[in-house]
Amino acid sequence: MSTKSTESTPSIQAKPNAQKVERWGLFEIALEGPQTRNPFLDVRLSARFECDGHAFEPEGFYDGDGIYRVRCSPDVEGTWTFATRSNRPELDGATGSFECVAPSPGNHGPVRVRRTFHFEYADGTPYYPFGTTCYVWTHQGEKIEKQTLDTLAHAPFNKVRMCVFPKRYSWNENEPEFYPFEGAPPTDWDFGRFDPAFFRHFERRVGDLLALGIEADIILFHPYDKGYWGYDRMTRDTDDRYLRYLIARLAAYRNVWWSLANEFDLMRAKTMDDWHRFAGIVVEHDPYTRMRSIHNCRTFYDYTKPWVTHASVQNGSAVEDFGRAGLLREPYEKPIVYDEVKYEGNVAHRWGNLSAEEMVHRVWQGVIAGTYVTHGETYVHPDEVLWWAKGGVLHGQSPERIAFLRRIVEETAPDGLDPIDKWQNLRLAGQPGKYFLLYFGKECPTEWTFELPTKAMAGFEEGARFRVEVIDTWDMTIAPVEGLLEAEPQGMYIYACDRNPKVALPGKPYMALRIVPA
Amino acid sequence: MSTKSTESTPSIQAKPNAQKVERWGLFEIALEGPQTRNPFLDVRLSARFECDGHAFEPEGFYDGDGIYRVRCSPDVEGTWTFATRSNRPELDGATGSFECVAPSPGNHGPVRVRRTFHFEYADGTPYYPFGTTCYVWTHQGEKIEKQTLDTLAHAPFNKVRMCVFPKRYSWNENEPEFYPFEGAPPTDWDFGRFDPAFFRHFERRVGDLLALGIEADIILFHPYDKGYWGYDRMTRDTDDRYLRYLIARLAAYRNVWWSLANEFDLMRAKTMDDWHRFAGIVVEHDPYTRMRSIHNCRTFYDYTKPWVTHASVQNGSAVEDFGRAGLLREPYEKPIVYDEVKYEGNVAHRWGNLSAEEMVHRVWQGVIAGTYVTHGETYVHPDEVLWWAKGGVLHGQSPERIAFLRRIVEETAPDGLDPIDKWQNLRLAGQPGKYFLLYFGKECPTEWTFELPTKAMAGFEEGARFRVEVIDTWDMTIAPVEGLLEAEPQGMYIYACDRNPKVALPGKPYMALRIVPA
Repeated sequence: MSTKSTESTPSIQAKPNAQKVERWGLFEIALEGPQTRNPFLDVRLSARFECDGHAFEPEGFYDGDGIYRVRCSPDVEGTWTFATRSNRPELDGATGSFECVAPSPGNHGPVRVRRTFHFEYADGTPYYPFGTTCYVWTHQGEKIEKQTLDTLAHAPFNKVRMCVFPKRYSWNENEPEFYPFEGAPPTDWDFGRFDPAFFRHFERRVGDLLALGIEADIILFHPYDKGYWGYDRMTRDTDDRYLRYLIARLAAYRNVWWSLANEFDLMRAKTMDDWHRFAGIVVEHDPYTRMRSIHNCRTFYDYTKPWVTHASVQNGSAVEDFGRAGLLREPYEKPIVYDEVKYEGNVAHRWGNLSAEEMVHRVWQGVIAGTYVTHGETYVHPDEVLWWAKGGVLHGQSPERIAFLRRIVEETAPDGLDPIDKWQNLRLAGQPGKYFLLYFGKECPTEWTFELPTKAMAGFEEGARFRVEVIDTWDMTIAPVEGLLEAEPQGMYIYACDRNPKVALPGKPYMALRIVPA
Repeated sequence: MSTKSTESTPSIQAKPNAQKVERWGLFEIALEGPQTRNPFLDVRLSARFECDGHAFEPEGFYDGDGIYRVRCSPDVEGTWTFATRSNRPELDGATGSFECVAPSPGNHGPVRVRRTFHFEYADGTPYYPFGTTCYVWTHQGEKIEKQTLDTLAHAPFNKVRMCVFPKRYSWNENEPEFYPFEGAPPTDWDFGRFDPAFFRHFERRVGDLLALGIEADIILFHPYDKGYWGYDRMTRDTDDRYLRYLIARLAAYRNVWWSLANEFDLMRAKTMDDWHRFAGIVVEHDPYTRMRSIHNCRTFYDYTKPWVTHASVQNGSAVEDFGRAGLLREPYEKPIVYDEVKYEGNVAHRWGNLSAEEMVHRVWQGVIAGTYVTHGETYVHPDEVLWWAKGGVLHGQSPERIAFLRRIVEETAPDGLDPIDKWQNLRLAGQPGKYFLLYFGKECPTEWTFELPTKAMAGFEEGARFRVEVIDTWDMTIAPVEGLLEAEPQGMYIYACDRNPKVALPGKPYMALRIVPA
């Protein structure tokens, strides 16, 4: 085994056989091995990585040109050792070690579930998903892909929903630059041979997102092929081998989330047993338990299943009005991410012509319900570059308002936003004894009389006083209200202010209040 | 074995060892057996009932005074034979037969699930649950219990949520007439010995409901004891024996539904494993697969579990406004019954002071969402006889409006009401190509322009014409609109009427439309 000495590797693209890797970074063993026959089918390779009795045992993969790789994302600092196992002697028994050092600034580790309905990075930093949708942005060629990354660098989005396979659909008739299998489009594929160039490109894009601090919500299957390339109707063996190959390549990227499918219920060639089996493959072969879900069209998957870390829901009306979005917290007791709620745009289809106001309203609705909402944009474009499918640039007016909301949530709600009094006051979210956001949605009140549910008061001292700010969610202003409001109990359910002072509001829609202890 | 010859037995209270029983009626073997030691613990008894290779094998039970019984509800017509099994020779090997004859008028059999979200009787007659809540009406003594039955005989309710155990709670401080175990209140119980008088009384009430065509939604455990009698914290063995005894006595009543608990999540002495075990006992020992669910307070049970036939949900806001109630159909794909949505009444607690208008509105909201809603009433009463707990008489104004709604549903919707275009038009329910109800809730429109979603039109011929009626859900009137409206496609999503005729509406809340093909 040849070990090149390198400096501490950046976490994003691994240098093979590095001696130092940061925590949650990516270490890679690269080995030379057989090129004859079919390395994808004939060669088995894995490695055991160990540090202080803590171990991962990921599978490796063939990267073409006689090079085999095994990747590991170390999650504890210290000296890691490794040893490979293979059915081929050239690849078997390679050993070595590397140092896992402290993470660099900005590396908070992978995302995991926090307090049932929320998320955090592995270092404990809260993570609030404000995602967007660019289904096949990695299949648009260097120019648009670079443009997409530039756009994302200045957008508020910290999660991107993106497909592995190319898409064939309205506004998506172009062929991709790379194909996942050797062969020729549209259907002449050797499903026994992956094309490493496809996967190298895809994982480079995942790394590009990581460098921007963006989670890659990777959609493993989708129905927008309809047999044109046939990736939506491969055999069971091919499906399973594809999943293992992808996991071997990608699981060590700490920003990876697995979405088994988009609109799984539209994939006629797959059965529920297939989805359960795919979930099993992901659970078995991803040693890091990255976030896992599956996305529906008309029919929900059973998100109560233990493999599902969060519900990745499509619903066109749940975040339209108060009292809806939070209902799905009850059956699932997991984070609810409304990953498709229609899109801001101007296509004729009603799923793609929300106003910017409505898109922003829906994200607020989700947040105030203790859930999360993913953005998407479908403005018609002369070259058919719609953000929702291809990326490019954003044309809409919602992203900066989503950025504004994201800042408010991040600075206000370290423990997330939950309904405070869920059957009574559907406009209020926060944490009892800590902080509150009150959203008025499409109502246009001209004043608000201070009132908090008794349930909000647990943890505050008697006579707690509050600071109120008026938030214009569209104009993106935050105006402090003069004076402090003191909460007194009034009956069984409410705390109000003795003096009954009114907070003036401008009589326009999309206003909110931030209420925090003084 | 002594077999008394009797006439065809009414289905309601079985005459032991009858020769004729109607389909879905109740046949009972009565045997004399040991009275020494403890028959409840020492004696095992069951019987195998068979007709044409179709068989049930229920457990029997000791009814006191040396009498043992085994009950069977035959579900096919023909000659049934039976043979008992017991660990006591006096009870073992008794054999006999009876004729199962056609059901009498009004006997439609037990209720089962129909088309995923709805219900029907075993003979195929649709069953729309319009239930009410009288938690401990069977523990109030003959006078009030008779009064309750008289009230129910003239009320619209076809399901009653009712507890086996007595309740100790606000407005419920009275001791019951019967106790389930031998001993003395409050806590001096011999949990090894049931008091048959208690169960005989309870099952008589179940039979009284059956005679009125009312399903008995029997709540097996509840938290409103708090250790006073201790029925909420019995040992595992006692719990399990109690369940088997109750099932042996009651399962053969075709109007029985099993609700494992009310507000199960408030029962601190029980674990999730207990609930799963109770479900297993019900599944194992009820040979008829009666309807099964469990009712929550703050935390939902996992209604996706296979033993659950329908979700029996408490939620104080899901049926308050459009677009909420139907959301729970997605995760469960089972009938959703909002069995507690707050109550019509005037107690200080917010769970019990809905206006009658709000109660009726909530039932309509549920129905228009493709779900069902249960009534309850909590008007304060000089003798503390609140309908919700004790029965008695109804004081509210919602029951007659619920009767009106029930009639509309029964005459309009043989296939139930489902959302037609669930992300777009949350006011409309019905069946494509068949019939529709449109509910305006608290909106007060003065006119309606004919429009139906394209999804509604599947199954109609081109140029289908519709008859519209204006329904005042509060004043209980149905006014036909003159003329027929012809549906023409207008764009991708809508059918409207070329002439654009407007239907006049009175500008008041709680109006609805019935739209059916002419």
